[in-house]
Amino acid sequence: MSEQLLLPQGFLFSASAAGIKASGRPDVGLVLAPEGASAAALFTQNQVVAAPVTVGRSNLRASRGHVHALIVNAGNANCATGKQGLDAAKSVCAELARELNIAPAQVFPSSTGIIGVPLPVAKITASLSRLAVAAKSGPEAFDAFAHAILTTDTRKKIACEAIVRKSGTVTLTGVAKGAGMIHPNMATMLVYLFTDVAATPAELHRFLRGAADESFNNISIDGDTSTNDTVLLLAGGKSGIALKKVRKEFERALRNVCRSLAEQIVADGEGVTHVVRLKIEQARTGDEARRVAGAIANSPLVKTAWAGADPNWGRILAAIGYSGVKVNPSRINIFLGPQQICRSGAAWPFDKNAAHQYMTNGSYQIRILLGAGKAKLDFLSCDLTAEYVHINADYST
Amino acid sequence: MSEQLLLPQGFLFSASAAGIKASGRPDVGLVLAPEGASAAALFTQNQVVAAPVTVGRSNLRASRGHVHALIVNAGNANCATGKQGLDAAKSVCAELARELNIAPAQVFPSSTGIIGVPLPVAKITASLSRLAVAAKSGPEAFDAFAHAILTTDTRKKIACEAIVRKSGTVTLTGVAKGAGMIHPNMATMLVYLFTDVAATPAELHRFLRGAADESFNNISIDGDTSTNDTVLLLAGGKSGIALKKVRKEFERALRNVCRSLAEQIVADGEGVTHVVRLKIEQARTGDEARRVAGAIANSPLVKTAWAGADPNWGRILAAIGYSGVKVNPSRINIFLGPQQICRSGAAWPFDKNAAHQYMTNGSYQIRILLGAGKAKLDFLSCDLTAEYVHINADYST
Repeated sequence: MSEQLLLPQGFLFSASAAGIKASGRPDVGLVLAPEGASAAALFTQNQVVAAPVTVGRSNLRASRGHVHALIVNAGNANCATGKQGLDAAKSVCAELARELNIAPAQVFPSSTGIIGVPLPVAKITASLSRLAVAAKSGPEAFDAFAHAILTTDTRKKIACEAIVRKSGTVTLTGVAKGAGMIHPNMATMLVYLFTDVAATPAELHRFLRGAADESFNNISIDGDTSTNDTVLLLAGGKSGIALKKVRKEFERALRNVCRSLAEQIVADGEGVTHVVRLKIEQARTGDEARRVAGAIANSPLVKTAWAGADPNWGRILAAIGYSGVKVNPSRINIFLGPQQICRSGAAWPFDKNAAHQYMTNGSYQIRILLGAGKAKLDFLSCDLTAEYVHINADYST
Repeated sequence: MSEQLLLPQGFLFSASAAGIKASGRPDVGLVLAPEGASAAALFTQNQVVAAPVTVGRSNLRASRGHVHALIVNAGNANCATGKQGLDAAKSVCAELARELNIAPAQVFPSSTGIIGVPLPVAKITASLSRLAVAAKSGPEAFDAFAHAILTTDTRKKIACEAIVRKSGTVTLTGVAKGAGMIHPNMATMLVYLFTDVAATPAELHRFLRGAADESFNNISIDGDTSTNDTVLLLAGGKSGIALKKVRKEFERALRNVCRSLAEQIVADGEGVTHVVRLKIEQARTGDEARRVAGAIANSPLVKTAWAGADPNWGRILAAIGYSGVKVNPSRINIFLGPQQICRSGAAWPFDKNAAHQYMTNGSYQIRILLGAGKAKLDFLSCDLTAEYVHINADYST
C-alpha cells in the first residue's frame, strides 16, 4: 500500500457544490475517462433499490461494460422516488452525455443521501458543464472528488497501489464513502476503483467479485445492504499493460485497496470509537463463520459492551447461540487479544483490568474458536455508542 | 383485565435479599404451591442455555409436570458456568426440596443476571429456610416476589384476570421481568403465571403455546432469545373449577394477561421512550409478517429515528427490503397513525409536523401494508436511545 497518492493515467476528476447538501459543501463529483474504460460493478442486494442503481445496471448492460463518465451526487439517495426518480437519474445521464458528446449508456450514475425525497435534477444538470470543463488529472482534483461524495463521513477514504514493470507501471486507486454504522444498517457505501491496466469487463468482474468477498462483504454488505450500495471498477488501459501480464500482482493490489477502504469505512462509522476485528475460526463453512460474525457484530448488547470497553464475553456467547448456526457451546473458546476469556463455553479466569485496558485501544481483535471445523474468516465490526444514536435520531428532520 | 390485584388460591410468596445484587436489594423470590400444581413451561430457543433452564426442563420431565416450589434469583444468570453451574442449580433445588420435604424434581429453578459468573449457591441456600417460613398469600407477599425477580427493570410487571362462575372464581395472575431492549438482544425475560383452575400439564401446555405466540413471540422472543428466557404456567386447582368448563374464558384471560405483560416488558425496555406497535398487513404468511416486523424492529437506523420522533419512512422501507421476505416495493404502503407517509413504495405528501407530533407520544402505531397477501400480525417494538447505550456500556464492570 502506497503512503503517497498515486493516480492511474487516463482519468480526470472534478467536484462542485450544486446546493443539494444543506451545508453548502461540494455535493456533486465527476470522473471522466475520455478514451473510455472497461467497467465491472457490484450492487446492493436489497430489494428496495435506488433509481441510480437501476439505471447504472441498465447502462452497463447497454454499453457492454464501457464507461466514459461517472457522475455522483451526495445529499439525496434518489431512492423510493418511483418513476419520477428513474426519470431523474436518466435525465442526469442524458444531460451529461449531451455535454460530453457520448451515449447516455456510457454514463454511470450514483446517488447517496436521504431516501424518499425527489432528486433536485436541475441543481445537478446546472453544474454539469462546469464540472466537465474543470475536470483534471492530479491529486488536487481527485481529492475534491473524494470529498464531494461524502455524507456523514468525517473524512475522505482513499487507497492506492502500484505495480511496477520494466514496460511501465499499473496504478490502482480507490475512493470510498461510507459512514452509517455499516453493519447492519449501513448508510450507502460507494466505492470507486480506477486503474490503467488493460482489461475486459469480464476479467474485471471476476477480480472484483473475489476482492469484494474478502473486504466489503466482511464488513457485512450482503443481505443487510443499503438501497444504493455500489462498487465500481474502471480500467482505462493507458498503462499499456494487459491484466493477464500482471494477474497475481493485480489481484493482490485490488484486494489490498479494497481491504484498506473497508477498514477506513468501518473506522469512520457513525459514532465509532472502537474497530473490532472478529477472527472466526474452526467454523464448519465460510458461510457459517460469516453468520456467526454477523450475529455478534449485529448485537446491540455486544456493541454497547465494546463501547464501554467491557470484556463481557457472555454477550458474545449468547449472540453465537442465536446466530442460527448449529454450535456446541462447550466447544467454544474466546480470546480477547492475547488473553483467553472463555474456555469450553464457560468462564475462565483472566485479568479483567488488562482486558479492559486492551479494549480501550482504537482497534483490537477478538478470536472465536467454534470447535466445529476448519473454515475461518476475518470480519470487521465496531461499537455502538450514544453518539451514533445522537447522529441518527435526527438525520432527516 | 382487572385494575385491582387478584391472586389465585393455593400459592404462597416470599422474597429476600441474599446479597447477590450488589445493590443489596431483594434478589431471591420463592413461590410455594403446598398442595402442588400442574405446570407447563416454554424456554429460550438459544443454543446457549443457562443451567437453571436445563435443570428446570429436566425436573418437569421427571415430575411429569408437577411443581411444588419455584425459586428465582436475580443478579446472576448461572449461564456459561459449565458443569459447576449445573451442580449449583441442582444444589439449590435439592436444598429447597429438603427444607420443604418434597422431591427435588418438584422444584422449578430460574436465574437472571450476568452471564459467566459462578452462582453464589451458599448465599441462596442460606436464605431458603427464611424464605419458606415467610411465604404468604396476599398482595404484599406477591409484590415482594414481583420486585425480587427484577434486574435492570425500573418497575414490577403484573397482570391478572378473573373468571367468575356461580360455582366459584378462577383467577389468573402473571408476573414478569424483562428490561434489556428485548428485541433482538433481550435481557432475560421471565414470566410466571399462577392460576387456581384445575388442569393437566398437557392442557396447560396447549393453552400456553397459543397465548405466547400472540404475545411474547411478537415482541420477538423466538430465534433471537436470551439464554435464560422462561415462561411458566402453574395451575393449582384450588378454585375447584376444571379448565374444560371455562375453556374459552381461560384462553382469553391467558391471552390478555400475556399480552399485558408483553407490553409492560417492552414499555420498560432499557432507555425506551417510545413503544411502537407495528401492524403488518397484507403479508403472504404469518411467518413472513413476523420476519418483516423483526427486520424493522431490529434496525438501529429505524429505532434511532423513532427516538428522535423522525417520520423517516425510507429507513422502514429499506429494512423491509433486506428482511429476506420477497416483496414488491411498489406495492408497499405505510401509515403513521392516521396519516399515510409512503404510497406504492414512494414518497407521499404528508404533514411532517403532525407526524413528528404524533411520534412524540409514548406509544403509537405504524401500519405496513405489503400488498402480497392476507396475513397480518401485531408486533411490539421500541426506540433505541442514548440511554440504552449508557445502561449497557457498563453493565458488568
